[in-house]
Amino acid sequence: MTLPNTHLRSLLEARSVAVVGASERPEASSGFVLRNLLACNFSGHVWPVHPSASSILGLPAVPRLADLPHRPDAVVIAVPAATAVEVVREASELGIPGAVVLASGFAETGAAGGLLQQALAASAVAGNMALCGPNCLGLYVPATGLALFSSRLVPGMRRGSVAIVSHSGATAIALANCGRLGVSHVVSAGNAAVTDIADYMTYFATTDTVRVVALLLEKISNPPAFARAMAQAHQANLKVVALRTGRSVRGARSTAAHTGALAGSNEATSAFLRRHGVIEVNDYDELVETAALLSAPGRRVAGRSIAAIGVSGGGLAHFADLAASAGVAFAELSSSTKTAIDKLLPPFAHADNPLDMTGIVFGDPDRYRDALELLAADSSVSTLVAVQDTPLGLDADGAHEYAGIASAIGQFHAKGSKPVVFLSLLADGPHPVIRETLLAAGVPILQGGRAGLGALGHAMADSAPRRVDPLTELRRQDVWVRRLSEGPALTEREAKDFLSAHGIATTRERLAPDRESAVRAAQTLGWPVVMKIESPDIPHKTEVGGVQLGIRDEAAVRAAFDLIHANAQRLAPQARIHGVLVQEMVSGGVEALVGLARHPPFGLALTVGPGGVFVELTGGHALDLLPVDAAAATDLIGKTPLHRLLSGYRTGLGSDTAAFVDLVTQLGQIAHDYEPYLEAVDLNPVTVLPSGQGVRVLDALIVRRMDTDRPH
Amino acid sequence: MTLPNTHLRSLLEARSVAVVGASERPEASSGFVLRNLLACNFSGHVWPVHPSASSILGLPAVPRLADLPHRPDAVVIAVPAATAVEVVREASELGIPGAVVLASGFAETGAAGGLLQQALAASAVAGNMALCGPNCLGLYVPATGLALFSSRLVPGMRRGSVAIVSHSGATAIALANCGRLGVSHVVSAGNAAVTDIADYMTYFATTDTVRVVALLLEKISNPPAFARAMAQAHQANLKVVALRTGRSVRGARSTAAHTGALAGSNEATSAFLRRHGVIEVNDYDELVETAALLSAPGRRVAGRSIAAIGVSGGGLAHFADLAASAGVAFAELSSSTKTAIDKLLPPFAHADNPLDMTGIVFGDPDRYRDALELLAADSSVSTLVAVQDTPLGLDADGAHEYAGIASAIGQFHAKGSKPVVFLSLLADGPHPVIRETLLAAGVPILQGGRAGLGALGHAMADSAPRRVDPLTELRRQDVWVRRLSEGPALTEREAKDFLSAHGIATTRERLAPDRESAVRAAQTLGWPVVMKIESPDIPHKTEVGGVQLGIRDEAAVRAAFDLIHANAQRLAPQARIHGVLVQEMVSGGVEALVGLARHPPFGLALTVGPGGVFVELTGGHALDLLPVDAAAATDLIGKTPLHRLLSGYRTGLGSDTAAFVDLVTQLGQIAHDYEPYLEAVDLNPVTVLPSGQGVRVLDALIVRRMDTDRPH
Repeated sequence: MTLPNTHLRSLLEARSVAVVGASERPEASSGFVLRNLLACNFSGHVWPVHPSASSILGLPAVPRLADLPHRPDAVVIAVPAATAVEVVREASELGIPGAVVLASGFAETGAAGGLLQQALAASAVAGNMALCGPNCLGLYVPATGLALFSSRLVPGMRRGSVAIVSHSGATAIALANCGRLGVSHVVSAGNAAVTDIADYMTYFATTDTVRVVALLLEKISNPPAFARAMAQAHQANLKVVALRTGRSVRGARSTAAHTGALAGSNEATSAFLRRHGVIEVNDYDELVETAALLSAPGRRVAGRSIAAIGVSGGGLAHFADLAASAGVAFAELSSSTKTAIDKLLPPFAHADNPLDMTGIVFGDPDRYRDALELLAADSSVSTLVAVQDTPLGLDADGAHEYAGIASAIGQFHAKGSKPVVFLSLLADGPHPVIRETLLAAGVPILQGGRAGLGALGHAMADSAPRRVDPLTELRRQDVWVRRLSEGPALTEREAKDFLSAHGIATTRERLAPDRESAVRAAQTLGWPVVMKIESPDIPHKTEVGGVQLGIRDEAAVRAAFDLIHANAQRLAPQARIHGVLVQEMVSGGVEALVGLARHPPFGLALTVGPGGVFVELTGGHALDLLPVDAAAATDLIGKTPLHRLLSGYRTGLGSDTAAFVDLVTQLGQIAHDYEPYLEAVDLNPVTVLPSGQGVRVLDALIVRRMDTDRPH
Repeated sequence: MTLPNTHLRSLLEARSVAVVGASERPEASSGFVLRNLLACNFSGHVWPVHPSASSILGLPAVPRLADLPHRPDAVVIAVPAATAVEVVREASELGIPGAVVLASGFAETGAAGGLLQQALAASAVAGNMALCGPNCLGLYVPATGLALFSSRLVPGMRRGSVAIVSHSGATAIALANCGRLGVSHVVSAGNAAVTDIADYMTYFATTDTVRVVALLLEKISNPPAFARAMAQAHQANLKVVALRTGRSVRGARSTAAHTGALAGSNEATSAFLRRHGVIEVNDYDELVETAALLSAPGRRVAGRSIAAIGVSGGGLAHFADLAASAGVAFAELSSSTKTAIDKLLPPFAHADNPLDMTGIVFGDPDRYRDALELLAADSSVSTLVAVQDTPLGLDADGAHEYAGIASAIGQFHAKGSKPVVFLSLLADGPHPVIRETLLAAGVPILQGGRAGLGALGHAMADSAPRRVDPLTELRRQDVWVRRLSEGPALTEREAKDFLSAHGIATTRERLAPDRESAVRAAQTLGWPVVMKIESPDIPHKTEVGGVQLGIRDEAAVRAAFDLIHANAQRLAPQARIHGVLVQEMVSGGVEALVGLARHPPFGLALTVGPGGVFVELTGGHALDLLPVDAAAATDLIGKTPLHRLLSGYRTGLGSDTAAFVDLVTQLGQIAHDYEPYLEAVDLNPVTVLPSGQGVRVLDALIVRRMDTDRPH
C-alpha cells in the first residue's frame, strides 16, 4: 500500500531514533544498530528502550516507548516477531511516523507468519506509519549517519547519488559496499509489508540528492503504485535500474523461501518494467556498472552511435563483438574524419571505428587526445569509448605509459564537447594510477566487457516511460457480457461470432448438424473447405481428431463428417456435440498468433507471434501489457519474427500489416471492455492476407474467467 | 605450417639468445627485451647484436649474427620489416632453431607486406626455424626468465600452469598481468606466419608444467594441424580454452586490419572448436575464470549437478537464475539429506538447493561446514559451490565474520570428499582476508556471476574431442563425376536423379515438355500434383513464378503449364527451358532442411533445421563439420527445433527420425565422395513422414564447384 510520503520522509530523514530491544550483546541486531549509529556519527537523538537497563552503550535508556521525553521520528524494533507486532501497535498509537522491523518469522515462514505480518501491517497503516521490513537489515543514509542497520557497514562508504533498495538484505550489503558506487541511501526492504519499493522511489524523486535508484527486485506487488512512482521518478530525471531475482524456476523457489514472495511471470514483469521506464539488467555487475555510469557527474551519455578508440586491435575487435550483442551501434565516420585521423597514425594503420591508434600513442599521447577530438567532431558520433586494459600489477614506470593515455582522455573530457567513458575489458578494472587519473578528471569508468557494454547500452537507450493513452470508453455489448458470464464454454463458432460482433474478420462458416447439411454448407462456401468438431466440451479439437483440412468434394465432406464424429465418440465420449463447423479454407497469407492471457498482478497481457506450430518451437513471440495503441502494437510485432514474414522479405509480397495492427489493438480494446470476464483468448492462426486484403481469424478460443475468480 | 617440435622447444627453452637491432634507447623494442631479460634474471647467455657498439646495457655486443662465438638457441629480431627478412635468412642459414620477429609491416598492412611475410616464412621454413611473429610482442617463460618480450612485464607475475597464447599482443599482456592466473608461458603469436597456435599447443602437450592453454584466437589457419594438436592436448590432459575475436562483422574488420587475417565463418569455427574439444568462451572474464578454475591445483570439478550454499536468499536466487542460463544443473537432494540439513538451520528455514544457511552461520560457521559435508554425502551432488559476496571495504572485524565461512569451506575442502569452489557474484571478488584464507586452503575462487558460472559450466562439461571415424571408402560414380565437372548447371530433376542414384528418396516426378504430356504425367502420378519450371538457368524457381502447388485436375494442369511458361518468358526470357516437372504432392510430414555449404578453411559443412520459411526467420538451424556419423547427426538435429517437431510433441505422432538421420549421414557421405565438385547442396524442404514411412526430398538444388576453384 502507498503511504503519505511525509511519513517515509520522517523515517529516512529521522533526527531522533528509539531502539526497542536495545542490547549491548555483540551479536544482537540492536547492538549492531546502536554501534552503527555511533560509528557513523549520527547527530540526532538515540534512545535505547530496555525494560530494566538504565543505559546501553553509554546512552540513557527508557523502559518503554511511552516513557520517552519526546516522540521520536523513527523506532527500530529489534525484538522477535510476535513482540514486534505489539511494539508496532504501541508506536503507531504514539504517533511515531516511521519504524524499522528487523525480525524474521513473518510471511517468509508460511501461513502463521503471514497472519503475524497482516497484524503488523494493520497497526502500521492505522497510524499512517512508514515501516521498513520486517525480515530486513534496515536502512542507512550516509549523509546524516542514520544507520538503522543491523549488519556491519564498510567504514567510509563512498557517498554519492545512488540509492540502493533491495528486497534482499545481503544483496543490499554487497552492492552498497562494492566500492564502485557513490551511495545516498541503502534500504533493505525485506518483506515490504507496508512500505514497498514504489514508496521509496517516490520519496527519492522528491530529493535532489538521488540521481539513480538501484533496485534488487523480487516482485512487484502493487503495479499501479509502482507505475505512479516511476512517473514521478521520470519527472525528477531519476533513473531506475533493476535486477530481478527469481527469474528461473529454481531461483524463484529460492526467493519464495526467502521472503514469501511469489514471482510474477518473467515476460509480463519485464514488459511492465520496460513500459514504465525501468532499466532491467542481467546481473550484479551490470547493475553496478549501469548505476555507476548513470550517476557519474556531468552530462549523461546519450545518442545511439559510439566511436571506440584503443591501442589493441584484438581488444577492440572483442569490444566490437560484445557491442554487437549489447545492441550498441558504431558511428560510420565521414571520410574527412578518417583522412584527418590517418595523419595521426603510423603508415601501416588506417582510421576506422573502432579506432586502433597502435602503440604509437604510448610515446605520444597527444595523438590519442587529438584523435578523440576528431572523432567527437564527427556528427555521427554521440559518445566516445576509450577501451583500454591496464594491468593491475604494473609498477609506477609501467603504469606511466598508460597514464599518458588516461591524461589524454581527461584533457578531452575537460573540453566537454561530447561524453567519453573509459572501459576496461577485464572486470578488475584499471590500474590504481589510471583510476585516480580518470576519477580526478571526472571520466566515468566501466569495468568488464559484458557488464560495461550492457551499462553503455542502457545509458544510451531512451528509457522514458512509454506513453499509451488509457482506454476510457467501455464498449461492452450486454448480450456478450451475459454470454461470457453464464452458460457452457464458448465453442469456436461462438468465439468467432463474438469477434465478428466486435469488428474482427473471421472465416466464413456454417454449422452443420448432419452430413447432408455439411455438403450444402461446403457448396455454399466454395471448395476447398475445412471441417471441425463443434462442442463446448472440446476446446482443443486437433487432439481428438476433430479437424480435417483441405476437403475438396462432396464425398470427402461426407467421409470427413463421419470420421470427425467417430473420433469424437472414441476420444471424447462425454462431450456435447453441436455438429460440424464447415469453413472456407483461406490460403496464401502469413499465419500469425494473437492472444490474451492473465499475468498476475498485471492483469491481461497481449501476445503476438508467428502462428501455427513454429511459434511454439522457436518461442518467437512477444508480450506486452495493456493498453496497446497502434504504435505499441507495431513495436510488439517488430519484436517477433512475424515482422519479417509480414514484410514479405522472402516472397517480395507485403502483407496487410495495417489490418493486423488493427486486429491487435481491437483485441486490446476487447481486453479492456471484457476484462472481468476473460481468462484467455487465443486467435491462432490468424491469416494476414496480402496488402489491402485484410486479416482472417481461422481459429479462435475464448476461455471465460470463472465467477469465483472475478472481483465484484 | 607445422614444424618439428624440437625447434620450437629450442625457442621456448632457449638457454642462449641473440638480440639483433639491440639498442639502449628506452623506447626501442630491443631495449625492452634486454631490460626484461635482465629484470627477469634470465640465466642463459644474452648477446646483443649491433653494427658498431661494443656493448649494450653492459652486455658485450657483436656486429653480426655470424660473429657469435656459439650458435644461440634463439634470436630476437628487433629491426624493421625489410631488414628482418634478411636477418631471418641469415639466422636460418646459421642453423639457429628459433626466432622472434617483432616488426610490423607484414601481411597486416596489405599486399606488399604479404609478399615480405612470404619471403620471411620461406627462409624460416628452409631452416626448419620456429618463428614467433612477425608483428608481435614476443614471448615470456616466467620459470626460466626467458623474457623475449618487447613490452613491460608486471614484476612478480604469478607463476603457474596456464599458458597464454594470443594473436593479439595487447590481449596477451592483459591476460598475463590480470593477477588471476598462474602463468607458465606468454606467447604473442602476432601474424603467426610460420609457427602458429597449433604448434605452441603441441609443444605444451609435451611439457608437464602446463595444465591449461588460454587462447585468444583470431582465426584457425590450418585446421588439420590444429586438430592434431588438440588430439595431443587431450592425451596430455591439457585443457584448451579459447576466446575468438572478430565474431561480429565490425569486430572481424578490426581484426583483419590488425593482422591481415580473415575470420572464418562463426558457426563453422565454433563447430570445429567444439568437435576438437576446445572450450569456447564469450569474453575476457570468462576466459580468465575458466582458465583459473581448470588450472586450480587438485582435482578438477566434474559431473553435472551442483549444490550451492550461501547466506543470502536473494544472492542464491540470482545465482540460480544465472545457472539456468549457463546450463549448470542443480542436484535434487534426497529427503534424508534435507532432513539432516534442516537440523542445522533455524526453525524458519528449510533445506533446499540452493541452500540458504541464513545469517546463523556467522556466529556458528561449523554449521556451514557440516552442511557442506551433508550436501557432499548426497550422491546426486557432484560439485559444491559456496556463493558469497564479501565486501572489499570491510575492516578486520567485519571481515572476521566472513572469514569463519571461508575457514569452514577450507576445512571441508581439506577432507577432499568432493570438489568445492567459492563464487563471488560481484566481479571484484572476495575481500583480501577471505581470498587469503581460501587460497591458503586451496579452494578455487570464481569472480563474477556470469563469468564464474560460465567457467563452472565449462569445467563440468565433458570437453573431450568428438570421435567420428573418418570415411575412407570413396563411392563416387563416374557418370556423376563427369556430370558435376561439365555441362550446364544441374536442374532440380537432375539433382534429384543424383540423390536417387545415391540412395536418397525423392518425390516421384515426370518431365513434361508440353501441356498434354504434363496432363498424362499428372494422371500417372495421381492427384494432386506440383508443377515446376525445369531450366538449368533458373536455380530459384519461386522467384520467377515457376512453381505451382496443389494442382487437382486436368484443366488446372493445362492452366498451370501455360502460367509457368508465361512467367518464365516474362521474368527469365534468356533461360533455356526443358519443360515443366510434374511431381507428386507429398503431405502429412514434417518439413526439414538439410544442406551442404563451403566454410573455408574447414571445407564443406552440413546444416540441418526446420524446412520452409521459418528456418530463415528464426535461425533454428545447426551446423557441423564433416564427417558426420549417426550419433553426430542425431546430436545435430537435437540442437534445432526440428528435434521437437520430429518427436511429435504437438501431434503425438512421431516422425521417421531414423530415416532422416540416414539422409543426413548419406549427405555427409556424398560430401566426402564428391568434395572437389560440390559448392553447395540445398535439400529444402525434405518431408519426414510418420515413423516407418521414410523421408522424401521435395526440392533439391546442387551447385557445382567451378573448375577454377577446384584443387588439382
